[in-house]
Amino acid sequence: MSLIVMKFGGSSVGDAERMIRVAKRIIARKQQGHQCVVVVSAMGDSTDELIDLSRKIYDGKPPAREMDMLLSTGEQVSVALLSMAIHNLGEQAVSFTGWQAGMVTEAIHGNARISEINPVRVMEALANNNVVIVAGFQGMTEIGEITTLGRGGSDTTAVAMAAAIKADICEIYTDVDGIYSTDPRVVKVARKLDEISYDEMLELANLGAAVLHPRAVEYAKHNQVALVVRSSFNENEGTQVKEEVSMEQGIVVRGIASDKDVARISIIAVPEKPGQLATVFTALAKEQIDVDIIVQSGVQNGSADFSFTVSIADIAKVMQVLEGIQEQVGYQEATSEVDLVKVSIVGAGMVSHPGVAATMFETISALGISINMVSTSEIKMSCVINNARLHEVINALHTAYGLDAEQQAFVGGPSDRR
Amino acid sequence: MSLIVMKFGGSSVGDAERMIRVAKRIIARKQQGHQCVVVVSAMGDSTDELIDLSRKIYDGKPPAREMDMLLSTGEQVSVALLSMAIHNLGEQAVSFTGWQAGMVTEAIHGNARISEINPVRVMEALANNNVVIVAGFQGMTEIGEITTLGRGGSDTTAVAMAAAIKADICEIYTDVDGIYSTDPRVVKVARKLDEISYDEMLELANLGAAVLHPRAVEYAKHNQVALVVRSSFNENEGTQVKEEVSMEQGIVVRGIASDKDVARISIIAVPEKPGQLATVFTALAKEQIDVDIIVQSGVQNGSADFSFTVSIADIAKVMQVLEGIQEQVGYQEATSEVDLVKVSIVGAGMVSHPGVAATMFETISALGISINMVSTSEIKMSCVINNARLHEVINALHTAYGLDAEQQAFVGGPSDRR
Repeated sequence: MSLIVMKFGGSSVGDAERMIRVAKRIIARKQQGHQCVVVVSAMGDSTDELIDLSRKIYDGKPPAREMDMLLSTGEQVSVALLSMAIHNLGEQAVSFTGWQAGMVTEAIHGNARISEINPVRVMEALANNNVVIVAGFQGMTEIGEITTLGRGGSDTTAVAMAAAIKADICEIYTDVDGIYSTDPRVVKVARKLDEISYDEMLELANLGAAVLHPRAVEYAKHNQVALVVRSSFNENEGTQVKEEVSMEQGIVVRGIASDKDVARISIIAVPEKPGQLATVFTALAKEQIDVDIIVQSGVQNGSADFSFTVSIADIAKVMQVLEGIQEQVGYQEATSEVDLVKVSIVGAGMVSHPGVAATMFETISALGISINMVSTSEIKMSCVINNARLHEVINALHTAYGLDAEQQAFVGGPSDRR
Repeated sequence: MSLIVMKFGGSSVGDAERMIRVAKRIIARKQQGHQCVVVVSAMGDSTDELIDLSRKIYDGKPPAREMDMLLSTGEQVSVALLSMAIHNLGEQAVSFTGWQAGMVTEAIHGNARISEINPVRVMEALANNNVVIVAGFQGMTEIGEITTLGRGGSDTTAVAMAAAIKADICEIYTDVDGIYSTDPRVVKVARKLDEISYDEMLELANLGAAVLHPRAVEYAKHNQVALVVRSSFNENEGTQVKEEVSMEQGIVVRGIASDKDVARISIIAVPEKPGQLATVFTALAKEQIDVDIIVQSGVQNGSADFSFTVSIADIAKVMQVLEGIQEQVGYQEATSEVDLVKVSIVGAGMVSHPGVAATMFETISALGISINMVSTSEIKMSCVINNARLHEVINALHTAYGLDAEQQAFVGGPSDRR
């Protein structure tokens, strides 16, 4: 017998029929001999409906405290109905709000972090042979204010609860079969991954965000909670997310991600003197601008060029900040460029396989596409390229790294084989 | 400055527009210099919608605990939105669920009684110049289970909160102008009462139930909370419900009520011996049957007839109980009769005006209608008659007791004048 946490998102419980299907799934798990704690989100569009209602009443952004009071009802409706559905099928269940389940958060509304979990009532209810249904996305501050956890909140609730009750596994049920090597809409032969490490999953966040929120992955990594991402519509195995991932299959690159929200800012002819980079990036940080890749050219004639990428929405603000420091820094010109994309390959084994980088460059060059910027980390390598031929690039990389379904996985780059 | 509790029902906050109108009403009260605690019900049909949802998931009556979990969200949505509406108009407000407001109830789901109120957070929020919005109809048990108070729950919340915080007045806002001398749909000249005593209000329950639940009236009487029932749609004065009602206007009968859910059961030829009545009514009580009027004929030839009234829905069960004790009691026959109605006149001054009863009998007899049963209490007198001419009877009584609007009120029955 093991103790499992099962998490179902809003689309899995979108109507009465789906709710009943989820109840059957839970009961099947219980009848296999497991103790089940279920975390559930608000039904389908119900959160959006509550937000619409608030818009009719409040002009602009409503007070966050009252918004939490409002939105937390969505999950409370779900837990009550799911518990009824389980009762109706003849099993015992008890539903809990976030605060009843002991989810204590910091005193921030709309995006609170979990500060402590006291799952006393959850454990008692389990001991009395109940399926325990916990409202995702919500908690309570120490003084009894209702809070919500923000985006990915229900995933985080599930992982945090799994850690607190020392569950054997935390199963995230979703509408896809698991985590894929890349977006299956772009690459028809995308491969469903049997397993992936926490770090890889974090780097693949923009692939996985729809099924598993990065914040939940961080929490899982920190607390070493074993995750499984699997479909709520079939019995397929899904993808395991864990610390150590087997290398048996020799998979070096586990997935390919892309991000179109990329603007490149270039600062031309920055006179060489100490602290120039610091001046620029401190000024940007003050304005809360997130800078991703930073590249500096070599120094020529006492001056250098910088490039960095930011979110497209931030371009205007960046240019304004740069103007404000032009005199101080003494650069010649600042430009911005869009229509770009960042393509990333992710794999925990990359650090020990030097050929991986060369394969990426060769594959992109072979398509006659130039690489504008490069950035590397231990488990990720990103290239910024023109976005016109993105799908072609992703498909070529997917094949080059042996990720295509049924294809033998890549075990080392061409440089290794030479 | 006074401290007031304002209660708004579901129809008063049925949509965004009404919610905003209620917010304006509250702010007007605050700007008059009052401290306001507002109790609010679930929006319009939202409770019914939640019940419908539960029916799609559970066959039969869902577990009461989970039903409370589900239904309590309705009021939580209302308080959050009403608070937002007040914020949007530039005033400070804080919403509280039942448990946040300190409503502690006994551990019964679906129909819990309030056991204790700890309004610490309510008082704190008031001290910080907030309008405090409290979810009606709900509370929490000592171990943290969410409960609901059953029918009339929000009225009870308002009265209980008013008692706990020692409010100067508890205003019940509704869709009518106040309490009427009788149903205005039956009597066109029904009179709006300026005031009514708790006891009269309780006896007029079936007149007032739609606007003020008897349970809330009992709670108000017990805690001496001054109530006002008034319209949420206009500024009219409404009806004051309190302990001592002025007799200046000489009003002896304050209102006329009727109840069509009346079945008369007759037990014919019950041999006279001690304990016969006890045997019958103990057997009925064991089956949870509420008996209203009981009449016993005089003893003739060593046996008597009994009659009593019950709810129509209980007839079959009553007949079954009676069959079970026929041998023991030794009665000859038991019969049931429907198509009856109970007409009641209510007034705290009745006890000191013996003519009141005579006027009732005379008025009904003058219409050629026979009276089947009579029952009296200190402030009420009821007659069971055939229901065919009910409206005629109520109108005649309304005039006879001087209740017609603009008419001089009845100051004593004909017997007195003789």
